[in-house]
Amino acid sequence: MFKKIDHIAIAVKDIESAILFFKERYGLETTSQDTVGDTKAAFLPIGDTRLELVQAVTPEGVIAKHIEKKGEGIHHIAFEVEDVGSSLEKVKSDGVACIDKVPRKGAHDSMVAFLHPNSNYGILVELVQHHKKE
Amino acid sequence: MFKKIDHIAIAVKDIESAILFFKERYGLETTSQDTVGDTKAAFLPIGDTRLELVQAVTPEGVIAKHIEKKGEGIHHIAFEVEDVGSSLEKVKSDGVACIDKVPRKGAHDSMVAFLHPNSNYGILVELVQHHKKE
Repeated sequence: MFKKIDHIAIAVKDIESAILFFKERYGLETTSQDTVGDTKAAFLPIGDTRLELVQAVTPEGVIAKHIEKKGEGIHHIAFEVEDVGSSLEKVKSDGVACIDKVPRKGAHDSMVAFLHPNSNYGILVELVQHHKKE
Repeated sequence: MFKKIDHIAIAVKDIESAILFFKERYGLETTSQDTVGDTKAAFLPIGDTRLELVQAVTPEGVIAKHIEKKGEGIHHIAFEVEDVGSSLEKVKSDGVACIDKVPRKGAHDSMVAFLHPNSNYGILVELVQHHKKE
């Protein structure tokens, strides 16, 4: 079901500082940025996957709350799937706790669904489909 | 400096159950297993990277302590570098807090060094070099 790791999201307080840090310290370039809902995101390709730096736009944002509770760090891992709708139905029927009951719009016109960490060894898992089926 | 993500390590209490879970739920196969120090590891290739499931061999193991404190979940991210010795020297001179002062032996005859989460946005970072320089 999982084709590859689409991205690893890292919750940061200051996305501009983090972009500079990963470039200067480790040579990773930011190739695109996007804002989805209350979250600013920057994508840094590495191999066939990407780091995604995420920062809350408002203090009430989901990323701000994550940092308040757990500090900066890994927020979720996104796995690419062929068809997010059927993948979500499959994991629901397998008994996985799903945060999204139906897929919703993600960054760069992807369709995404989040699965609960309690059903995934403590990992917040995102399913991502890049091109919508017609 | 970072060539690609070598693996994402996930701390689990029961590695055999986790191997089955990732295979049956998400279609990821375990292709190799290894024991390094007090840690059992299983590697599950995905795209050009791998998930690494890690379980403590003893209750005093570093993974057992991690789970006791934070629960199961992501333990570290390993980035492949060309030369772990020179990479470690570079990040030390950049002021990154390093857990390993010199590289040491990792899984599958790799050489590795861990960098402190406090210097890396809360992420325990491992540098990995796969073939030792002669």
